[in-house]
Amino acid sequence: MAQNVRLEGLGILVFCVLMNPVMTTAQQPALHLMPLPAGVQFGTGSLGLDWSFSVAFTGYTEPRLERSGERFLRQLARQTGLPLSLKPAKRAKATLVVQTDHASKEIQEVGEDESYVLEVNAAGAKLTAPTPLGAMHGLQTFLQLVDVSPGGFAASAVTIQDQPRFPWRGLMIDSARHFIPLDVIRRNIDGMEAVKMNVFHWHLSENQGFRVESRKFPKLHELGSDSLYYTQDEIRDLIAYAKDRGIRVVPEFDMPGHSTAWFAGHPELASGKGPYEIERKWGIFDPAMDPTNEKVYKFLDELIGEMAKIFPDHYFHIGGDEVNGKEWDANPKIQAFMKSHGIKKNEALQAYFSGRVQKLVTKHGKTVVGWDEVLVEGVPKDIVIQSWRGQASLARAARQGFRGILSNGYYLDLGWSAARHYAVDPMSGDAASLAAEEQQRILGGESCMWSEYVNPENVDSRIWPRNAAIAERLWSPQEVRDPASMYARLDFVSARLEWLGLTHRTVSRHMLQRLAGSASAAEFAALRTLTDVIEPVKDYTREQTAPAEPTSATPMNRVVDAVPLESDEGRRFGDLVEQFVASACHDAAAEARLRAQLTAWRDNDAILQPLAQRSFLVKEVTANSQDLSALGTAGLAALDAIAKGQVAPDSWKAQQLATLEQIKKPKAQLLLIPAPAVQKLIEAAAAGGACSSPQP
Amino acid sequence: MAQNVRLEGLGILVFCVLMNPVMTTAQQPALHLMPLPAGVQFGTGSLGLDWSFSVAFTGYTEPRLERSGERFLRQLARQTGLPLSLKPAKRAKATLVVQTDHASKEIQEVGEDESYVLEVNAAGAKLTAPTPLGAMHGLQTFLQLVDVSPGGFAASAVTIQDQPRFPWRGLMIDSARHFIPLDVIRRNIDGMEAVKMNVFHWHLSENQGFRVESRKFPKLHELGSDSLYYTQDEIRDLIAYAKDRGIRVVPEFDMPGHSTAWFAGHPELASGKGPYEIERKWGIFDPAMDPTNEKVYKFLDELIGEMAKIFPDHYFHIGGDEVNGKEWDANPKIQAFMKSHGIKKNEALQAYFSGRVQKLVTKHGKTVVGWDEVLVEGVPKDIVIQSWRGQASLARAARQGFRGILSNGYYLDLGWSAARHYAVDPMSGDAASLAAEEQQRILGGESCMWSEYVNPENVDSRIWPRNAAIAERLWSPQEVRDPASMYARLDFVSARLEWLGLTHRTVSRHMLQRLAGSASAAEFAALRTLTDVIEPVKDYTREQTAPAEPTSATPMNRVVDAVPLESDEGRRFGDLVEQFVASACHDAAAEARLRAQLTAWRDNDAILQPLAQRSFLVKEVTANSQDLSALGTAGLAALDAIAKGQVAPDSWKAQQLATLEQIKKPKAQLLLIPAPAVQKLIEAAAAGGACSSPQP
Repeated sequence: MAQNVRLEGLGILVFCVLMNPVMTTAQQPALHLMPLPAGVQFGTGSLGLDWSFSVAFTGYTEPRLERSGERFLRQLARQTGLPLSLKPAKRAKATLVVQTDHASKEIQEVGEDESYVLEVNAAGAKLTAPTPLGAMHGLQTFLQLVDVSPGGFAASAVTIQDQPRFPWRGLMIDSARHFIPLDVIRRNIDGMEAVKMNVFHWHLSENQGFRVESRKFPKLHELGSDSLYYTQDEIRDLIAYAKDRGIRVVPEFDMPGHSTAWFAGHPELASGKGPYEIERKWGIFDPAMDPTNEKVYKFLDELIGEMAKIFPDHYFHIGGDEVNGKEWDANPKIQAFMKSHGIKKNEALQAYFSGRVQKLVTKHGKTVVGWDEVLVEGVPKDIVIQSWRGQASLARAARQGFRGILSNGYYLDLGWSAARHYAVDPMSGDAASLAAEEQQRILGGESCMWSEYVNPENVDSRIWPRNAAIAERLWSPQEVRDPASMYARLDFVSARLEWLGLTHRTVSRHMLQRLAGSASAAEFAALRTLTDVIEPVKDYTREQTAPAEPTSATPMNRVVDAVPLESDEGRRFGDLVEQFVASACHDAAAEARLRAQLTAWRDNDAILQPLAQRSFLVKEVTANSQDLSALGTAGLAALDAIAKGQVAPDSWKAQQLATLEQIKKPKAQLLLIPAPAVQKLIEAAAAGGACSSPQP
Repeated sequence: MAQNVRLEGLGILVFCVLMNPVMTTAQQPALHLMPLPAGVQFGTGSLGLDWSFSVAFTGYTEPRLERSGERFLRQLARQTGLPLSLKPAKRAKATLVVQTDHASKEIQEVGEDESYVLEVNAAGAKLTAPTPLGAMHGLQTFLQLVDVSPGGFAASAVTIQDQPRFPWRGLMIDSARHFIPLDVIRRNIDGMEAVKMNVFHWHLSENQGFRVESRKFPKLHELGSDSLYYTQDEIRDLIAYAKDRGIRVVPEFDMPGHSTAWFAGHPELASGKGPYEIERKWGIFDPAMDPTNEKVYKFLDELIGEMAKIFPDHYFHIGGDEVNGKEWDANPKIQAFMKSHGIKKNEALQAYFSGRVQKLVTKHGKTVVGWDEVLVEGVPKDIVIQSWRGQASLARAARQGFRGILSNGYYLDLGWSAARHYAVDPMSGDAASLAAEEQQRILGGESCMWSEYVNPENVDSRIWPRNAAIAERLWSPQEVRDPASMYARLDFVSARLEWLGLTHRTVSRHMLQRLAGSASAAEFAALRTLTDVIEPVKDYTREQTAPAEPTSATPMNRVVDAVPLESDEGRRFGDLVEQFVASACHDAAAEARLRAQLTAWRDNDAILQPLAQRSFLVKEVTANSQDLSALGTAGLAALDAIAKGQVAPDSWKAQQLATLEQIKKPKAQLLLIPAPAVQKLIEAAAAGGACSSPQP
């Protein structure tokens, strides 16, 4: 799948290879780049790396580039185990020369030039970029190019001309529902840099916590955070850390709803009588600010002024989502205000509030970002809509002249597969039919890590590696959308991300060790066999199936908290079944592998049961373990039927499918992922003929 | 194996159970304590843990105890995933009450009371200790008692009366040959605390580096460290960190040999003409201080004075090992001095030097520790001998009135198994026959992590988990020596140690990912199958078999650097073969497991070969991989022969053993660990009769 793509802006024609490692030829090494660059042209040979590798900066330089060079060398040393000198060279000649043209803006802007050209050949490498932003992206691409080879560590000879498709490529982390310490935030920002995301959206206030030190209103963090908040110095450090990586930091203070924690210290802002305390449960709650109280706007004026000084970004997120209006309905003073001002609905009251707050934000030099709800009649055109509702909402906004970013489809907490997120495009659906000028208003997207069911321990594993697929969606050309290629590269990038300190792979093993206690090696292996093929329930099913109402004090030490949100083993098994069925069940090697896997599943429960008797946390997945055994038995029966070359009887099929229906039901909030693939085997066995000749 | 042990000093009789998890009854839960306490008495039931768990300190308290309580709660929260309050309770009533009698010494002394009594029942727990040292040890024991259970996380009801066998239980880390950053040192100190070691011996100067900032002689670290050194502030912080964990810090400045790095800045101290530069290779080198130069003693007086102020411990290690004397032989001035002073041999010249340095150390208020070589005629009786030579040397010293600590047998860099280290007892061999008073002089021992072949990345994996077995040898009663019990507990403790931040398990996977590059899941699994059963060559074979002369710039990214020093899989396979042969080859389940394992090994090379073609680092273990296949084939042939119930012919046996001899030869500096076990299978097959009736 190679095609010619004209890179707008560069005006040159290059080969854009939508790389699938499986499909590259012997001459073309498999590149494991993520996001895929806009344009790639393969060269000959590769650049070998040894201890003498060096990097030098020419043209425009600044301390940030120096530091990015040091970080690059440290990361390269880690990736290769080579004892590299960790200082960029002071001379213009080096293995990798980075030439930057001019400075980027002091405060990073939306749509700044982030492009770069990276040329690698056997003699050396050159990275050229208009700005430090592009140079830093190019360094990340080089890191991904380096891999072990027959002759040593090497980077493939290649010319890459690259630029992002969208200027706004963000990750939102909710530090409010569960507090996320700065070291965890920092390593996630490292991960964002690796996949070229450029906006860290920091969700800082919620019903469950107000997480920023306010010197003007110290009761906000003192009474609203359980002492879990960021000091202003810490925030400044974090912003500098992000800027060093070409990443903007957009703060969000959610109002007028989602604000119970504010009221713990400042009940006078609320619409109800109180008393208020930090919310410990999840959901949408009644408390909301009083839009009719002038003191509220005075307070917000001062607070926004204080926060606007700490957060230099031009954008300021005011939330604005999910107000249920119950406190407004119950407050006679508010009702009287609405009547006297001709405000008929709560929606209009919220619009009034948003309008007032937008003016305050503007007064303090910022542009408002808000969730869909803030888009109501009369709001100024310069606000940015972040859409949790979807492309239709976004397109409607764009037609009205508003800029927007997509988050619907990128909610990491819903447990979707990387492929499902990957298929979501900001320009699809209603947005596809927008005029060119309107399309320009779609700035990009943001993945969102809402934190009801994550904590500092497992949050990495809920963000990564899937977030890398979303990052590619937002950076790479729209045509880049082959999930098989994406997964092949994601596997590689996921391992690389752990070198940055992210723990998304290792934490699962640690958490399983916790709940396995003193398991024998065989028992632990059996636990792994089970947990390798189960995933937490999707979307909002977790709330609906919780054994007891979850709160912020609920331990997250169960299997559902420990397993990855996406099962690699489950996906691979599905691929193998596809391959087998597509061969008209003639692929003997695939059959042997399926049989081995199904046998292991069938026999697994017997090994795991003694451990389940000793650990209440393993016992919780007893039914899942029995299901896995049943699944193994069913799959083996299907293979046996296929091997006989006869059509399995309908009664057998009905019985097997009934078993599968039971297996597919979530238990302990977990799904057994290979069930649909085994169903395919059963259907193939029952179809008989369908599996005796090659499929179309 | 339960026996009654009178705990001297406590004067009470308790049951001392040498716990083997396999042997505990249904009523007696398996305790995974390491080191095993001096005395354990089982109670009934267990203490359940939930979010309300609290700890309080009564009696004598100090800030260190408060901090240890916070650390304990943080660790308990990590182990269980429970959202515990992380502050010790301010009231006397708590789930765990810690009662301490009095302060320990301001500067921790050798032989201070470290005992404690820990009583746990269903209602609560009480920890009683004379000093904070014992209280902190007891907290670690409690952490090990907590495990997942059928009803939740719980600590078994138990009464433990515990005290160390030896007062000096140390780990030495060589920060000089490869610099080890402070974060790595700190997490290793956390590990020491977990297994109740109490001395961190810091090897700070070597031919390859002088690692401490000297303000009196800044050229020492400026010219002798490649900028890799600890500042004095950092050292003070580290000492405070260790003290908080009941751990003394003993610095070592090795002299008069092992000191080339000093001479880079101060050639005037040396016996040769120079010029000198930091040594980049490993071994014993010629440069040595000039014992005949008064300026050397003046320099050392000032330096020792400076360092004695930074390191508060009463002991000061002056090294003193391995002087080859070549510079002395070649220096006419030194020869003249020897003649005029009647010094006949270099050994006597070193004794003269040591005597002078000892006086300086004494002058600055410290007691000398030195390697065996410092024990020569006339040295004062208060010095402590650290023996790399062994128990005979130690016993000889003790008879002469010197105190000593054993390190022979505890060199972690030699790649021995945990069981082999575990079998080494400071009181065995010549030491066993010492009089009681002389035995008192054997203070304990120290494991030693020499760092020629470790770096910050893999050093944890070279220290742990084996160091925990040495810690048990030095703490627990001499009778505790069952390797099966040790391994069962070590597995558990090893997983727990990673919760402290140690990386001994995860790093191996990361390093293998590096050398596997973009391996498929199946290829990576095949690499793991191979690397799970190979170990680096033992003792000093690595030097002797190096492909090129190793230096401090040699990358440590090979398989030999990545695999653990001890193969758990190899050990388990050996145990399984023992079990099978002991059943007269009738144990069908064991046979099935052996056959599955051997088949996987036989087939592994075919899966791994494509990866070896793509990665030079995997290619290096091609022969090992082929050996593993051959081993699988040989083992399967043996099982087949056994299954036939006939005696395999001698010619077959000879041929198989010849194959095994080839397999046993190290390749790529790696050993294939299951080879001897497969040899047992072959011999069993060839013996026929030997395997047809139960073994004695």
